[in-house]
Amino acid sequence: MAKQNAFYAQSGGVTATINATACAVIETARKHRGKIGKVYAGRDGIIGALTEDLIDTSKDTPAAIRALRHTPGGAFGSCRYKLKGLEENRAQYERLIEVFKAHNIGYFLYNGGNDSADTSHKVSEVAQKLGYPLVCVGIPKTVDNDLAVTDCCPGFGSVAKYVATSMREAGYDVASMARTSTRVFILEVMGRHAGWITAACGLAADAESEAPHVLLFPEIAFDQDKFLARVEDMVRRHGYCAVGVSEGLRWPDGKFVSESGLRDAFGHAQLGGVAPLVAQLVKDKLKQKYHWAVADYLQRSARHIASRTDAAQSYAVGKAAVELAVRGRSGVMPVIVRKSQKPYKWAIGVADLKDVANKEKVMPRDYITEDGFHITAKCRQYLEPLVQGEDYPPYKNGLPAYVKLRNAAVPKKLNTPFKI
Amino acid sequence: MAKQNAFYAQSGGVTATINATACAVIETARKHRGKIGKVYAGRDGIIGALTEDLIDTSKDTPAAIRALRHTPGGAFGSCRYKLKGLEENRAQYERLIEVFKAHNIGYFLYNGGNDSADTSHKVSEVAQKLGYPLVCVGIPKTVDNDLAVTDCCPGFGSVAKYVATSMREAGYDVASMARTSTRVFILEVMGRHAGWITAACGLAADAESEAPHVLLFPEIAFDQDKFLARVEDMVRRHGYCAVGVSEGLRWPDGKFVSESGLRDAFGHAQLGGVAPLVAQLVKDKLKQKYHWAVADYLQRSARHIASRTDAAQSYAVGKAAVELAVRGRSGVMPVIVRKSQKPYKWAIGVADLKDVANKEKVMPRDYITEDGFHITAKCRQYLEPLVQGEDYPPYKNGLPAYVKLRNAAVPKKLNTPFKI
Repeated sequence: MAKQNAFYAQSGGVTATINATACAVIETARKHRGKIGKVYAGRDGIIGALTEDLIDTSKDTPAAIRALRHTPGGAFGSCRYKLKGLEENRAQYERLIEVFKAHNIGYFLYNGGNDSADTSHKVSEVAQKLGYPLVCVGIPKTVDNDLAVTDCCPGFGSVAKYVATSMREAGYDVASMARTSTRVFILEVMGRHAGWITAACGLAADAESEAPHVLLFPEIAFDQDKFLARVEDMVRRHGYCAVGVSEGLRWPDGKFVSESGLRDAFGHAQLGGVAPLVAQLVKDKLKQKYHWAVADYLQRSARHIASRTDAAQSYAVGKAAVELAVRGRSGVMPVIVRKSQKPYKWAIGVADLKDVANKEKVMPRDYITEDGFHITAKCRQYLEPLVQGEDYPPYKNGLPAYVKLRNAAVPKKLNTPFKI
Repeated sequence: MAKQNAFYAQSGGVTATINATACAVIETARKHRGKIGKVYAGRDGIIGALTEDLIDTSKDTPAAIRALRHTPGGAFGSCRYKLKGLEENRAQYERLIEVFKAHNIGYFLYNGGNDSADTSHKVSEVAQKLGYPLVCVGIPKTVDNDLAVTDCCPGFGSVAKYVATSMREAGYDVASMARTSTRVFILEVMGRHAGWITAACGLAADAESEAPHVLLFPEIAFDQDKFLARVEDMVRRHGYCAVGVSEGLRWPDGKFVSESGLRDAFGHAQLGGVAPLVAQLVKDKLKQKYHWAVADYLQRSARHIASRTDAAQSYAVGKAAVELAVRGRSGVMPVIVRKSQKPYKWAIGVADLKDVANKEKVMPRDYITEDGFHITAKCRQYLEPLVQGEDYPPYKNGLPAYVKLRNAAVPKKLNTPFKI
């Protein structure tokens, strides 16, 4: 196979370690100069390919690329843009091939969640049908940890470490103040459909008396009375109660709790924020003083407290993706395989994209205690290795020194507009 | 002076480094065994003294006490409990002296904010009037950084480092997603009356294009139109806009913005959360997609990213307090003095408690830009040294290993009830 360029794009919500994957892709490609020319990144993800807005990563120094390893966010921009079905919008796929052809791109590396695996799979099919040789490799990433096949998802271990650490720290705070002040603390975390991040909060509790005392999973319908009784019991027994709640908590009728309550002064529904609603319940029904926090983007960008395991895995999947690509493996995705539990050992395996595409892995029921309010020993055993090790970024002037790339544009060759 | 015991209590909201001060108090007292017998801590702060609920810190090992240096929260419990004026409630002060007498306490070390400085000052006066020799030393602590005389407050540097780091990280996240998703991000931080923590968010921006683009201080009345115009301008110029907002933001009429809007389904006012209100404004008026975070207790308990400077200063004031006490200095508080700006050098000075009591240091107007939306170079110069250096806690199983003390009770001698 003649030397061709590679296209790399980041997709969907970014993570603290997706740039470690980008770093690995670029560094590994530079080691295969015989097969891979340049790595072009899509500016703002796949939109960059559709609009022929490509970034020439060779314009950045090896030191800058290396610094990606410890920089959160998506260095080339990401997007929430799902390509439609093949029949619905063949033009999009054909446009991708047109752009790839114009820029001599022979490798398509797509870094994202289950949507992205689906897109990679479809692009691979279209390329084949159009007779354009294109090696398509998906690369896993998502803080939600909800991808099929892989044991865990790059990006998750770091958000898990962040929420568990934050819950532990807040627990120490609330415990100190409970005598005369706040007795109930509520931390809202991400994970709209899968409770993995909520579960990770549970790692903070080494004993039943420790924070968090209650977890509210998206997988378990919210039973208000049972919840309030549990909170009351915890306050009585331990002096305070710390709660971790998923943004995706639902009422028994399936509606999101976050969408059920607050109105602004004009009666408009207030969007987002299940924590304040749960807090209001605690105040109205239990008359307890509360505090609540919403970690939001802080949790998924907290590179300062990344898991060393996660950073290593995020790098490894990027490296493996390029190695698969140069071997001509298409329609696949490197995944993380748990080889042993104690001591924890992992390796990179290979999954077919079609087995990952559009599937969602929620928490197994036996990872949640019978009462629905905490994690089981089995869940803890699964989660614990993923937060192991620290991987601190360098600091300058007291703050993490993150890199901003040049992101120089590749001169356009087609120069034809494409409406996205 | 014969050997006497010391009483130490934590007061008000706890911080990531107040236990470093406790560590210093106990370790330093152990070096002055000729003058100080035991260090008794108040369980849940001053309430512990009033109810004769004292903790014998000698029951904990030197290693456990050492671990306080890197443990957030208040190890002995704190409280929000302000002693009333002398004339109003002399009984409280007399009770304190009664308990101190019963337990041979000759040193009163009170670790808190301006309320606590006031209490220490009053206790010192009452002891004198009652002819009970008691050395009263205040020890500064508050994330709000609003104490008079001292250049900065122990606890502030660490919250400053946390909010600046979080803002920088979230900025990288939002910048990546702005093309198709969130364009406005709002982080709510503490500081009900003084904007120091809000100002610290500003450290994240090395250039005008970087997050945060807008700061909303409690010292500057909220001008909704000017704010919206600024956000719109930033989104136009930089693609996104990150906002740091104080929980204490007020409308021009002086009312808290946080209390002005949301109602639950029954029309009850929703308490707390200025970030969702500002976000709603952005959505309604600018039609921009937003995300918001409320750091709440996470910011003041984030020992995992404490400032090394702050940790050192927090330890130093505890050590100095004991050294002042054994020299018989009463009615004073050790403070931090800035000796030089570049390189940053600091030393411990001594202030009179009456000069600190009940005073509040808000941001000087020339620390805020003329338009009211950011910090000036002068402010940055003041803040920067305070976040210098990292001071990581040890980790176990991937999470910070914080200590829980035994907190063994001192046998009661009075055994008389006291209603608090």
